[in-house]
Amino acid sequence: MAKEFVKEIADIDTQFTRWYTDVVIKTQLVDYGPIKGTMVIRPYGYAIWENIQKQLDERFKATGHQNAYFPMLIPQSLLNKEAEHVEGFAPEVAVVNVAGGEQLAEPCVIRPTSETIICSMYSKWINSYRDLPLKLNQWANVVRWEKTTRPFLRTSEFLWQEGHTAHATREEALKETMDMLYLYRDFARDVLAMPTFIGQKSEKEKFAGAEATFGMEAMMLDGKSLQAGTTHHFGQKFSKAYDIQFLDKDNVKKYVWQSSWGVSTRLIGAIIMAHGDQRGLVLPPKIAPVQAVVIPVAAHKQGVAEKAREIAAALSAAGIRTQLDERDQSPGWKFNEWEMKGVPLRIEVGPRDIERGEVTYSRRDTCEKLSAPIEGLDKAALALLEDIHESMYRKSLAFRDSHVKLAHNMQELGEILDAKCFAKVVWDKDPACEALIKEKFQATVRVMLDEPPFQNTCTCCGKEGDLTVAIVARAY
Amino acid sequence: MAKEFVKEIADIDTQFTRWYTDVVIKTQLVDYGPIKGTMVIRPYGYAIWENIQKQLDERFKATGHQNAYFPMLIPQSLLNKEAEHVEGFAPEVAVVNVAGGEQLAEPCVIRPTSETIICSMYSKWINSYRDLPLKLNQWANVVRWEKTTRPFLRTSEFLWQEGHTAHATREEALKETMDMLYLYRDFARDVLAMPTFIGQKSEKEKFAGAEATFGMEAMMLDGKSLQAGTTHHFGQKFSKAYDIQFLDKDNVKKYVWQSSWGVSTRLIGAIIMAHGDQRGLVLPPKIAPVQAVVIPVAAHKQGVAEKAREIAAALSAAGIRTQLDERDQSPGWKFNEWEMKGVPLRIEVGPRDIERGEVTYSRRDTCEKLSAPIEGLDKAALALLEDIHESMYRKSLAFRDSHVKLAHNMQELGEILDAKCFAKVVWDKDPACEALIKEKFQATVRVMLDEPPFQNTCTCCGKEGDLTVAIVARAY
Repeated sequence: MAKEFVKEIADIDTQFTRWYTDVVIKTQLVDYGPIKGTMVIRPYGYAIWENIQKQLDERFKATGHQNAYFPMLIPQSLLNKEAEHVEGFAPEVAVVNVAGGEQLAEPCVIRPTSETIICSMYSKWINSYRDLPLKLNQWANVVRWEKTTRPFLRTSEFLWQEGHTAHATREEALKETMDMLYLYRDFARDVLAMPTFIGQKSEKEKFAGAEATFGMEAMMLDGKSLQAGTTHHFGQKFSKAYDIQFLDKDNVKKYVWQSSWGVSTRLIGAIIMAHGDQRGLVLPPKIAPVQAVVIPVAAHKQGVAEKAREIAAALSAAGIRTQLDERDQSPGWKFNEWEMKGVPLRIEVGPRDIERGEVTYSRRDTCEKLSAPIEGLDKAALALLEDIHESMYRKSLAFRDSHVKLAHNMQELGEILDAKCFAKVVWDKDPACEALIKEKFQATVRVMLDEPPFQNTCTCCGKEGDLTVAIVARAY
Repeated sequence: MAKEFVKEIADIDTQFTRWYTDVVIKTQLVDYGPIKGTMVIRPYGYAIWENIQKQLDERFKATGHQNAYFPMLIPQSLLNKEAEHVEGFAPEVAVVNVAGGEQLAEPCVIRPTSETIICSMYSKWINSYRDLPLKLNQWANVVRWEKTTRPFLRTSEFLWQEGHTAHATREEALKETMDMLYLYRDFARDVLAMPTFIGQKSEKEKFAGAEATFGMEAMMLDGKSLQAGTTHHFGQKFSKAYDIQFLDKDNVKKYVWQSSWGVSTRLIGAIIMAHGDQRGLVLPPKIAPVQAVVIPVAAHKQGVAEKAREIAAALSAAGIRTQLDERDQSPGWKFNEWEMKGVPLRIEVGPRDIERGEVTYSRRDTCEKLSAPIEGLDKAALALLEDIHESMYRKSLAFRDSHVKLAHNMQELGEILDAKCFAKVVWDKDPACEALIKEKFQATVRVMLDEPPFQNTCTCCGKEGDLTVAIVARAY
């Protein structure tokens, strides 16, 4: 039975791309929408997003941010105001020319991101130092028309949050940019059980219109990197383009300093590819839609169904997202299905278990089968979920640490990348080195790390200079 | 001071439309977006929406619904499949012709509602009776290009939820349609403190593509009606157009029976116009972003600031959404601002209060000023918020009941409407009567009530026949 299920999922080691597609479709996380590149997020996938949203939103609010909602349609002229920004996004926007049966006087675009419309409002709302800092976030859909798409990773429409803040000083804006980067890193670690590298992006990889971009990169099981979140320091580029000025305490008009930051439904793709295995999903307990599934075994025997219901009710009452599976299918079929769906804890209730006052359980991260007393199972399950989170994180961290190697020169860099690892390089920040790495290895500088260089010449060009350590990897 | 604030808001009795606009803009619920007919929902307005969302979502989930997310862009051809539906919505859609720098082979529209795309997926997902019922909801933005727009009431883009369900039998689908209507009515009463009339809509007023539409209508302070939510029974109209069939237990292929239902950010407009007064907003406690504001009076005096902070912390700890206002403004200025913003409970902490171990408080619904002991203030405040909810509901209900009159004939109907009341009419369901009422009085049949007719002839045409009682009103 297990084999039959597994047969449906392509081999994770040799066909990782197909494995991913099989998993997201067969576990009913998503389906393809009628327009190429769009996805339908099905209830099981959307419940993960809701859990991410809820826990991120709490962190945003606890750090003084408020939510708001800005219109999705942006006049073309507004998009055009910041030169680099429009150059970066114009090629992928969707344009509305006709609405309400009439040709629009000015076409508008569906937001690919909301800097432009938010800045136009900030220009109206911000007048005095008393109006600062202004720290807003919005949960929204955005559209970026992409050539190559894959569910969660790159879709024409996706869901995300975008924070946009305005500050009186450069230092404050920069601090916000870093604080949110750290918030994302902590969230990935504490909620998604996912270790990440954080650091500044290269000039080439930075956001269109930003002064500096910082990224959070996670290692997927195929050794490729996934950009899981970014924060941007805008300096005064947008405030000058959109005229956002405030009268400071010293009675002088000044332009505000800004940041923006975002994560998206892409995080779901990251979870799948950081934790999955041949059987399917392995979901971190804190975002799993179902944390524990209770399956009656030999449910026709006296007392089994009742006991299973009782146990499920006790787990629910303890705040565990529990599903009781009483469907008319064999236990084996159910075991495999819930394994594929990545439920952290599976609890089997059979007549012999009940006689012994026990249940048999299986944790999804290790697939080991153990037993536990029914008495106090709620507390034990809570502790188990915590332990599953911890051990998933440790496993991910160990995997990552064993897949990061120092590249002292270009030959080593090529070997490391071909061995499906991240390379740590020393880089003199010359864009020519970055271009060469891309050309030779189809790899990119992911983030620069705040670490002392491990040699005194650039891994790529061998020159001395203003050296930094950086992560180079192939990426999604 | 009070006068100065009030001066900024147009007179509620004689200039209700301007009063509404003044209130939504000055309390910073919304601002106008750059494209005509769009609104920016500012943090204070969005927090109300979040409170509505959270409490509705809990009710949806408790009744077996799951959330999902469907693409916003719908191929034109998909919209065209159900004839009445496309006829109803085509005139107001926004059309995307160009995306990613290229002319699209087939134009797509931004969803005005999602029946079409959801039905196309249901056709794929539903195969067996085991797949039923399917009860999904989505929280999303929609675009309907309207000629005349007003914040919250009618905007080109708005936020809403739309439930879409599929069932094996007509009875089940009809039960769902009614259950959700009752859920909306209970929510309006228990959370928004707003009495409503519920009932079936006339043929003319029903949703494009529905077999029957049911509505929830609330009376605004100007005697006009606002449609605050609708539920639709589709029968098999959509399942036949989109080919949604299932193999039933009897091994026969059958079309599913469907419902849909929705409420939107319009509810915020309803709250404003059902509860507001000359001083501004009066927010029902259960959705108020700030339920209690604590204002230190003579804050420079020893111990005042500390005591105010202590009280605010105690209220927050009791689960009350509390704001401590320590801004550098006079207490009078603050009182007026928070009154305008509709905060249910205002607590003043001054040196004399502290001496007496008391605070002075004011409830927004009555504006009476009272005092309460500091000891146990958290419990007292919780009880007060509950009482404010109850008395707001009672006040609304009394207002409504005193503004509904029986219209025995057309002359009475005209007089009732001109007196800014709802009319209860007896109607023989002849569309000609409905058209005449519209023509003569610019009023419409809002809902048909499940009540015995109070006379045996139609209020409009005087004929006997298949008579029903209905609410006739001018409407938003």
